[in-house]
Amino acid sequence: MENRTISFRSRPRIVATSTVAGTKECRGVIGRYVETALDDDMYGESTYEKAERKMLKKVIFGAIENAGRRAEEVDLLVSGDLLNQIISASFAAREIPVPFLGVYGACSTMAESLAVAAAFIDGGFIRRAVAATGSHFASAERQYRYPLELGTTRPPQSQWTVTGAGAALVDSVGDGVRISAATLGKVVDFGVTDVNNMGAAMAPAACDTILAHFRATGEDPSAYDLIVTGDLGALGSRILKDLTWEKGLDLSGNHVDCGEIVYNVIEDEFQGGSGAGCSAVVLNSYFYSKMMGGSLRRILFVATGALLSPVSSGQGESIPCIAHAVVLER
Amino acid sequence: MENRTISFRSRPRIVATSTVAGTKECRGVIGRYVETALDDDMYGESTYEKAERKMLKKVIFGAIENAGRRAEEVDLLVSGDLLNQIISASFAAREIPVPFLGVYGACSTMAESLAVAAAFIDGGFIRRAVAATGSHFASAERQYRYPLELGTTRPPQSQWTVTGAGAALVDSVGDGVRISAATLGKVVDFGVTDVNNMGAAMAPAACDTILAHFRATGEDPSAYDLIVTGDLGALGSRILKDLTWEKGLDLSGNHVDCGEIVYNVIEDEFQGGSGAGCSAVVLNSYFYSKMMGGSLRRILFVATGALLSPVSSGQGESIPCIAHAVVLER
Repeated sequence: MENRTISFRSRPRIVATSTVAGTKECRGVIGRYVETALDDDMYGESTYEKAERKMLKKVIFGAIENAGRRAEEVDLLVSGDLLNQIISASFAAREIPVPFLGVYGACSTMAESLAVAAAFIDGGFIRRAVAATGSHFASAERQYRYPLELGTTRPPQSQWTVTGAGAALVDSVGDGVRISAATLGKVVDFGVTDVNNMGAAMAPAACDTILAHFRATGEDPSAYDLIVTGDLGALGSRILKDLTWEKGLDLSGNHVDCGEIVYNVIEDEFQGGSGAGCSAVVLNSYFYSKMMGGSLRRILFVATGALLSPVSSGQGESIPCIAHAVVLER
Repeated sequence: MENRTISFRSRPRIVATSTVAGTKECRGVIGRYVETALDDDMYGESTYEKAERKMLKKVIFGAIENAGRRAEEVDLLVSGDLLNQIISASFAAREIPVPFLGVYGACSTMAESLAVAAAFIDGGFIRRAVAATGSHFASAERQYRYPLELGTTRPPQSQWTVTGAGAALVDSVGDGVRISAATLGKVVDFGVTDVNNMGAAMAPAACDTILAHFRATGEDPSAYDLIVTGDLGALGSRILKDLTWEKGLDLSGNHVDCGEIVYNVIEDEFQGGSGAGCSAVVLNSYFYSKMMGGSLRRILFVATGALLSPVSSGQGESIPCIAHAVVLER
């Protein structure tokens, strides 16, 4: 029997979060929930990459501080990001005196890092960990696509990489949102080669993990207040609903995508937000607040990642994708 | 108290390994131990990146097969590599029907993936996992340094990225080498900026993790037949012995570095081997064979990684490094 869903018997707790987001992001629904709203997307730094790293460092320390802890009390940092060699995470970790596990799951990193942190805590190996990730529109554009200075036109199926970061402090004790289970993703590739259409590429991976989760748990979507995907965007979200519908699973009543809701729709973003920071910011600000406030009781958080690189696309490859899911309860 | 060493009470077992290595590598000490010795470093592929990916896929399936298992019986693949967005691991995972956790620890990946696999098994979440990584000289050169076609002269402090891959099947049952503990690394940066001198950059990270390990366990180096580092090379290995000596720890009697021993010394490699594939191949062929054969009983395997990228170096940054250690017993 397939065994992709793991249960965390002690249900580790997200006792605090921290988020930072850019100017464009804060004009949307998360604006009232984000801890640090930037008024300058460069964050006072000289390069986009340094701004991204500073955001990530800010939220990691922020989550520790918001939990009333010192860094020395944290046993593990699980983090990754979109940049080559995950330099945002690695360089942030350099300034944080905590053991570090670097992970790479592209935009699925928030779910992957939460699952790893919860497993290390529930396994009894550590007491508390920080799970964190982020992204920056400008660093992602120049690494994956074109330098902004070229002024390249974006096609209508594209999304806009979120400038922002989010961190969660996961603890073995204390009050917070509980992590009760995780369903680990397999790599799924439906042959999409359009690097501007991440939603279409990632939707099959989300579908695969969601189906595996419900098969393993015997639950149906009504067991969750919301099934929250990471950054499929408007088009990808519709594709996911279609794919799951074909498999006999109706998500239409309670599915929402962080990428679809993060921006007030204006012309530029087309299908909505993307990037590792997208689900990290929306989960750790908006959804965390709603769960702690009691208006959401149980969500399935499914972050999706497109595991391509410019090199793989340049060598004619399609886009392999993955989705990891975690069950969050209050 | 600092808590970086975690114990695996059930001592998960490496029940099988698989390795592949390039032509130059197989002329050295590992030649007699490697499972698949290439006679063509392109491995029949059209690009270096595809050759690297094919090696990684080969050893993942190889470890599963050598354990007498089918892929469907494996619950988790933990893998990463040096390429941007770890495309070798992600694209290999696309062809393997197993849940995938992508990790990034540069050349420390073999130890990081073994630690994560052991934690998931010892925590009771899964039964068996594959930990795997690899590298290719030519793909690493053109990504981190210069295209080979330029014929750039290498400085004497440089190392040679190993063309090869290694995988270990870690199981909750069966006969094999036991993983009894892991000490997770912190990011350490002593300010080295020379991207051709990885040994000097990484040695302080190895020192930090080894000291933390002995502090936590109360052991001294004599508790191990060997303390095996990943790819410090000849110079880095000497620096490590100096640094630990200054801290009152004498490694001179039983320290060996995979990078230092992997090649028969000829002019080109200078300080020896490096790359995620270096420690992966040497551990999973030579050392695994020695442990299963009984001539080595207990080793501390400390793989080191340099967490730089060409972008971070181009922006004037020094090289943050990390080392993860696992205790292997027979």
